[in-house]
Amino acid sequence: MDVIDIIVTKRDGGELQPGQIDWVIDAYTRGAIAEEQMAALNMAIVWRGMTRAEVSRWTAAMLGSGDRLDFSDLPRPTTDKHSTGGVGDKITLPLTPAVAACGAAVPQLSGRGLGHTGGTLDKLESIPGWRAELSPAEMRRSLTDVGGVICAAGAGLAPADRKLYALRDVTGTVESIPLIAGSIMSKKLAEGTGSLVLDVKVGSGAFMKDTESARELARTMVDIGNDNGVRTVALLTAMDAPLGRQVGNALEVAEALEVLAGGGPDDVVELTVRLGREMLAAAGLPGAKDPADALRDGSAMDAWRRMIRAQGGDPDAPLPVAAERREILAPASGTLTRLDAHAVGMAAWRLGAGRARKEDPVSPGAGVTLHAEPGDHVRVGRPLFTLHTDDPARFDRAAESLTDAVTLDGEDTRLPLVIDRIG
Amino acid sequence: MDVIDIIVTKRDGGELQPGQIDWVIDAYTRGAIAEEQMAALNMAIVWRGMTRAEVSRWTAAMLGSGDRLDFSDLPRPTTDKHSTGGVGDKITLPLTPAVAACGAAVPQLSGRGLGHTGGTLDKLESIPGWRAELSPAEMRRSLTDVGGVICAAGAGLAPADRKLYALRDVTGTVESIPLIAGSIMSKKLAEGTGSLVLDVKVGSGAFMKDTESARELARTMVDIGNDNGVRTVALLTAMDAPLGRQVGNALEVAEALEVLAGGGPDDVVELTVRLGREMLAAAGLPGAKDPADALRDGSAMDAWRRMIRAQGGDPDAPLPVAAERREILAPASGTLTRLDAHAVGMAAWRLGAGRARKEDPVSPGAGVTLHAEPGDHVRVGRPLFTLHTDDPARFDRAAESLTDAVTLDGEDTRLPLVIDRIG
Repeated sequence: MDVIDIIVTKRDGGELQPGQIDWVIDAYTRGAIAEEQMAALNMAIVWRGMTRAEVSRWTAAMLGSGDRLDFSDLPRPTTDKHSTGGVGDKITLPLTPAVAACGAAVPQLSGRGLGHTGGTLDKLESIPGWRAELSPAEMRRSLTDVGGVICAAGAGLAPADRKLYALRDVTGTVESIPLIAGSIMSKKLAEGTGSLVLDVKVGSGAFMKDTESARELARTMVDIGNDNGVRTVALLTAMDAPLGRQVGNALEVAEALEVLAGGGPDDVVELTVRLGREMLAAAGLPGAKDPADALRDGSAMDAWRRMIRAQGGDPDAPLPVAAERREILAPASGTLTRLDAHAVGMAAWRLGAGRARKEDPVSPGAGVTLHAEPGDHVRVGRPLFTLHTDDPARFDRAAESLTDAVTLDGEDTRLPLVIDRIG
Repeated sequence: MDVIDIIVTKRDGGELQPGQIDWVIDAYTRGAIAEEQMAALNMAIVWRGMTRAEVSRWTAAMLGSGDRLDFSDLPRPTTDKHSTGGVGDKITLPLTPAVAACGAAVPQLSGRGLGHTGGTLDKLESIPGWRAELSPAEMRRSLTDVGGVICAAGAGLAPADRKLYALRDVTGTVESIPLIAGSIMSKKLAEGTGSLVLDVKVGSGAFMKDTESARELARTMVDIGNDNGVRTVALLTAMDAPLGRQVGNALEVAEALEVLAGGGPDDVVELTVRLGREMLAAAGLPGAKDPADALRDGSAMDAWRRMIRAQGGDPDAPLPVAAERREILAPASGTLTRLDAHAVGMAAWRLGAGRARKEDPVSPGAGVTLHAEPGDHVRVGRPLFTLHTDDPARFDRAAESLTDAVTLDGEDTRLPLVIDRIG
């Protein structure tokens, strides 16, 4: 095999053969293909794209570069959810125990946040004592005993993706639907789930700003999952406005607890239930208990408490609170017709909820509380947002992010919460 | 400056700003931009191309990465020729002394061959004693005393191009007109010539197979030269069939000597004269002696002999001859309507005239002699080609290259020797 032939084939718009793809991923992981050659190939993929056969094989090869967990011997069928990331997206927190309470097992391997969207592990780490790193035996125990686990992905899963992602990050080759889809799916398939529901976000707060590219990403990931033996469906959901009323690590855990207690904002509850039903159906449990019932009857909360305890967390400990608060008031009265997710995400990030570099710490208490959502009437001088931070020097820059975050009495251009289903 | 911004700008089809280009080339040459980042940028350039302003600046930046020779104080105006390379292209050999004999000074920095086209230095090195490496003082002396010099480019000229070319070679990013044009022109501009005539070859034996891409390359190089203060014109010339009757190092020197003696094949003579007239006009010597006269009256040959001697060569020493010969006979009678330059180049290469890797030696005597050219009538059983090699094991593979090299009694699709002039 000659890597230059492979680069030139893709550069000129040709299709890579399965043997070429297997060889490229393996040789790159072993260090037998130089970084500059892989960078050129990646830019050619950004340019020319990949066929379904190519991207499925590419993902399989990355998956094959490391370990693949296997939970097929568990008494319950496994199912998982992956979100492409959004502002205020704490859905994994109530969803995992709710689905566990309905009879499936949820092996949720999550990541930390970078940039304006938060990471599930960062949120859970605001719970005193909770730890993200589990051994495979601990994961299996939680899946067996509770039916769900949320933990960090081990270094042995899809090492090719880790190496490739670091390269794409510094070479301007992140923005490619097949490369994004392959990266996400190689990690999700490695965690050993039997079925998968994708929550592909659309809007200002999402990676995909428009419905068409989100649909293409969803279609690509669904194809990859099914081609690799994992029953996969996707929902396209709204991320033009934040999900719920709380954005920030401990703030979102608190809101998830409201949902698990049978309350919480309508959009968070509805999306949790919709995704939960999809997961149970994908797991082959169509007659299972309804996740809405699990939220109402306390069984989801019970699973949550056991899941948190199994990882050293104290579900009854008070959550951290930021040292300082500032309110931002409505500049006029009117109907809130737009509340920009990206602006709110940036504000929370600037308050300390997110990180700029991988090695930065996050503040558990920092974030933004929303006092109104699109459709609400707001009154001049009443609070629109509460900003939370440990460092009051951050308030001004965060408030700047929110300058153009809202429109009053404008056209209602809200996306429906669930835009489409691809399966 | 952020290299990722620059990569993303080009990836998305934007134009790079002069400051960005200067910074990228400088930082890459210093090692402050990683090879993988430059590889991604190069693939994005293959994809998106460069505007005239971009490629002129890119070339200027590469030129600025090293030394630029300066012969502006010589009593004669300087002018040079560059060919994009072809089979049997020995034009530099008679052209340099012919133009020197007409009153200009020709600082010709040449390279060695790679693949199926030969290098001017390889050809001259078949002359006993001749050496390619000269100091700047030796170059200047030959330019002053003889009016011409053909020698190797020093390592100090356009080091950015050397580093970049090595990268492009292993990353599938050679085939880009702006990158090719920038690479050629940065080296030619560094040699300090005041004017430049480009011989852009078109056809099977050339890098550019069709007239349209050759015209685009010529236009791009002409623009770069003029934008950088060097009066530049280009001729598009035929490379569907080999130039002249001899292909190989010493074989081509022998044919060049025929031309310098007032004889030689018509196409070699005509192209030498056409390019020589363009060089003299570009140098601002429109009333100078005609190169055709310099070939006829012995003044070009006299300049040649002085030029060879100045570099240690013995112009009277017998040229090396290959140890073995084999003839290939015409399979039928008819009019030769096609003689494929690429096939002949491959045969010469396989006989030992060229190299596969930079570090390989070449055989001075190896090559192919053509006994007919397009338009000639050939008779069955009479020699079409003579193959020359030091290693008879090479004959069969070389003969294979020639299997489909000729067409008898076909359509006459010959290109005119000079297809177009761009200036």
